Amino acid sequence: MDSLSDTRRSRHINWQYLFAPHSVAVIGASNTPGSWGYGIMRHLLASAKKKIYPVNPTTPEVLGIAAYGSVVDIPGSIDLAVIAVSAPRVPMVMRECAQKGVKAAVVVSGGFAETGEQGGKLEAEVVKIARQGGIRFIGPNTMGHADTSSQLSTLAWTWEMPPGPVALISQSGNYGHRIIHQGMISGIGFSKFVCTGNEADLHLEDYLEYLAQDENTRIITAYIEGLREGRRFFQLAKEITLSKPIIAIKAGATKASAKAARSHTATLAGSDAIYAAAFRQSGVLRVDDDDELCDVVTALLYQPLPRGNRIGILTIGGGLGVVAAEACEKEGLEIAPLAPATLKKLDACLPPRWSHGNPVDMAGISMAENPVIFPSLWALMEDETVDAVLLQAPVGANTDRLATMFDSEELRAFRQAEESSLSLLRQRVRQQEKPVLMVKPAVEFATDPEVASLFSREEIPVYPSPRRAARVLNHLAWYRRYLDNS
Amino acid sequence: MDSLSDTRRSRHINWQYLFAPHSVAVIGASNTPGSWGYGIMRHLLASAKKKIYPVNPTTPEVLGIAAYGSVVDIPGSIDLAVIAVSAPRVPMVMRECAQKGVKAAVVVSGGFAETGEQGGKLEAEVVKIARQGGIRFIGPNTMGHADTSSQLSTLAWTWEMPPGPVALISQSGNYGHRIIHQGMISGIGFSKFVCTGNEADLHLEDYLEYLAQDENTRIITAYIEGLREGRRFFQLAKEITLSKPIIAIKAGATKASAKAARSHTATLAGSDAIYAAAFRQSGVLRVDDDDELCDVVTALLYQPLPRGNRIGILTIGGGLGVVAAEACEKEGLEIAPLAPATLKKLDACLPPRWSHGNPVDMAGISMAENPVIFPSLWALMEDETVDAVLLQAPVGANTDRLATMFDSEELRAFRQAEESSLSLLRQRVRQQEKPVLMVKPAVEFATDPEVASLFSREEIPVYPSPRRAARVLNHLAWYRRYLDNS
Repeated sequence: MDSLSDTRRSRHINWQYLFAPHSVAVIGASNTPGSWGYGIMRHLLASAKKKIYPVNPTTPEVLGIAAYGSVVDIPGSIDLAVIAVSAPRVPMVMRECAQKGVKAAVVVSGGFAETGEQGGKLEAEVVKIARQGGIRFIGPNTMGHADTSSQLSTLAWTWEMPPGPVALISQSGNYGHRIIHQGMISGIGFSKFVCTGNEADLHLEDYLEYLAQDENTRIITAYIEGLREGRRFFQLAKEITLSKPIIAIKAGATKASAKAARSHTATLAGSDAIYAAAFRQSGVLRVDDDDELCDVVTALLYQPLPRGNRIGILTIGGGLGVVAAEACEKEGLEIAPLAPATLKKLDACLPPRWSHGNPVDMAGISMAENPVIFPSLWALMEDETVDAVLLQAPVGANTDRLATMFDSEELRAFRQAEESSLSLLRQRVRQQEKPVLMVKPAVEFATDPEVASLFSREEIPVYPSPRRAARVLNHLAWYRRYLDNS
Repeated sequence: MDSLSDTRRSRHINWQYLFAPHSVAVIGASNTPGSWGYGIMRHLLASAKKKIYPVNPTTPEVLGIAAYGSVVDIPGSIDLAVIAVSAPRVPMVMRECAQKGVKAAVVVSGGFAETGEQGGKLEAEVVKIARQGGIRFIGPNTMGHADTSSQLSTLAWTWEMPPGPVALISQSGNYGHRIIHQGMISGIGFSKFVCTGNEADLHLEDYLEYLAQDENTRIITAYIEGLREGRRFFQLAKEITLSKPIIAIKAGATKASAKAARSHTATLAGSDAIYAAAFRQSGVLRVDDDDELCDVVTALLYQPLPRGNRIGILTIGGGLGVVAAEACEKEGLEIAPLAPATLKKLDACLPPRWSHGNPVDMAGISMAENPVIFPSLWALMEDETVDAVLLQAPVGANTDRLATMFDSEELRAFRQAEESSLSLLRQRVRQQEKPVLMVKPAVEFATDPEVASLFSREEIPVYPSPRRAARVLNHLAWYRRYLDNS
């Protein structure tokens, strides 16, 4: 743990130079497709808002832009330097950056503390030079960073990160990459993405403090292998989670994975039990992987937090109800006992063969019986013992499938009825503070954009299995309880 | 548990009438889109191989085919009757079927034992009538069944089930439906699908015994809520799993889910611990849900069983390696300690910054360094301590992404190199009896059919997360150990 006890350390950093620079030098810029220096240049050039200066002593131009032999040869001032040269050359390059008056840097190059003692010494040298020159930097051994509002990306890979209110701090470039991918599938937009690398200068805790103040960020997510300033992290988190949720993956809980973390970014994974307790005490939602992270983010973006953990299940089939109830109970949720008034309302809606209890199994209602779904859902939501609903009903059926049953006009009417019901659902969810999560196999989305937009328009999160939905509901209920007691 | 101790009971059944009938009567056939009688008719008519007779006393024709007032009015003989009328009418309809000499039936109608005592009595009456008439039947309260080789489907829904070697017996129509969907995404083909319903006559155990002999079925899967003949099931399973894998979901392990199972198909879920032990002792691979079921099936279809549980991990990024190692260890797998000779070989392949251990982290090799991947994989597979490999490398990168780096000719050459490497991989996997599972985010498949076919052609299973791949490897290793000790 660091000797600095001031958790507010990062307020002295001018983050603009890192996240919204006016000019960027790419040291190690290259014309070789597939190389880092090529990928970074391409990505930077994709947005025209800032001046880009390639630096490469062996070529007159990179991607059609005049290259400089050294950063000191560039005529204008440089806010940010992206350094992608071999590790032994980094001290010299950093010295030149200091000489030039560069404000901030991203050291992409690997081959430092993560490789052992020798690399550690090299890293310490780079830090010393940067500190003397007043340069704050990300990395080394980082994949870079990105900001969708300033349209900056120092990443070498080329996925277009969709803009939105979710920030990601990642101690792994590739795993961060995965989370962004998964987020794209789930319709999540991102504000900022930082791969922290070896954190020789800027620490994960600095980014956390910065993002707490960032008005483009409503939710902070993180992939963590080990914290360099654990105490500071949890002090910050305790304050931040009162207004912005933090969702974190903490890897390295097992022997070989902890060892792998050490050789990855030179971090000590630490005791998993201590981390688990500290996350709980500071209101951090800890998740296992990228799927779960995106599942929770989607719910937090669109749904209220439930008052408790008693779940109502509305399902089209008995087996689905059994599996859903099991998934909820295994997550520690309760299956709400329904009030007599609710049973009465459901008797009035549903065919007599329904399950007469929770899970509310509509017992294989046919497409023709579809209009019973929403009245049943309203009845369930109105029950005071129900805090949240897990919905597995044939809402948003696959268009191709419907086309085998209906002509085009009938189909349009069918969809319109669904749309207005879902719109009503959106209102009721907010009024009653009762989240409703939909469970639907992924195939219906993969093959049917009409269905996907039906739900996204009304901000109804959809999960591919009851287990994933139940896990999310448990996180939401836990977070509400945490906030109520804070 | 049933009083019949003969596990071979079902050999006396003439299954042809159920799975490959020459003539089918649909009692309750309907012209109302969205109704059961309509959906079943449409589905049956989609294959022209058998004679279809709609039965409906109130309409002269159904979907353009002359309808009969009663099954007894049909001129030809009837192998199979599909019954989709309201529960109280089923005894009468079954009596008419007996009178007509119908051989087998599928009773789709619900409203029997699953609804309580009254329904139970009605069900007993139907069984009595069918037994007297020599009619064996599926259901009641079933969604139907399907056979891809005889092209029969009595299901009311219209997904086209792709043909293949996997059979599914399901105590839930909707959950079975989900498994078929999930299988479609995973590229799995099905031989037969039976929704068992209330199992008033034919039991899950009868179908299991039949499928063991079915030459179109190489793998048997099942969704189970409760077994009516547990002893018979496990006796059969112990024999079957020696040559055909059985993969089962057993739901109803928690309080509310067990209660839901009772009202769903009138089954008693029983003690979960007893089931778990019995599955283990009879070589049944127990899985949690449809995802895991399809994951295991895909591996069993295409990969050998590993000799042990020591895993080699080849990864493009340190974070991915940490998460993969953790996932493996949490599943009870071991991370193989690599032999000095292997480390030497890897030193010769990989850039010096590689992790020098297992997980083998290639430390963010660029696209230009791509040719190092397969030599590294061969080195890992040749290590005697490695029983299976989990591969997270940029093989099969997204076409759009590659197009930003390469021109079209380069891209073609790049893909061809990948194809021949994957083809070599397929051979080595079989020669060395070492399964190799690929981990790759789902988005790259959803958006890129070229990538999907690259792997399916060479029968390399791809999983969206290391956790799912690790779970599969654990099942494979367990099954191999079971078979070795049997």
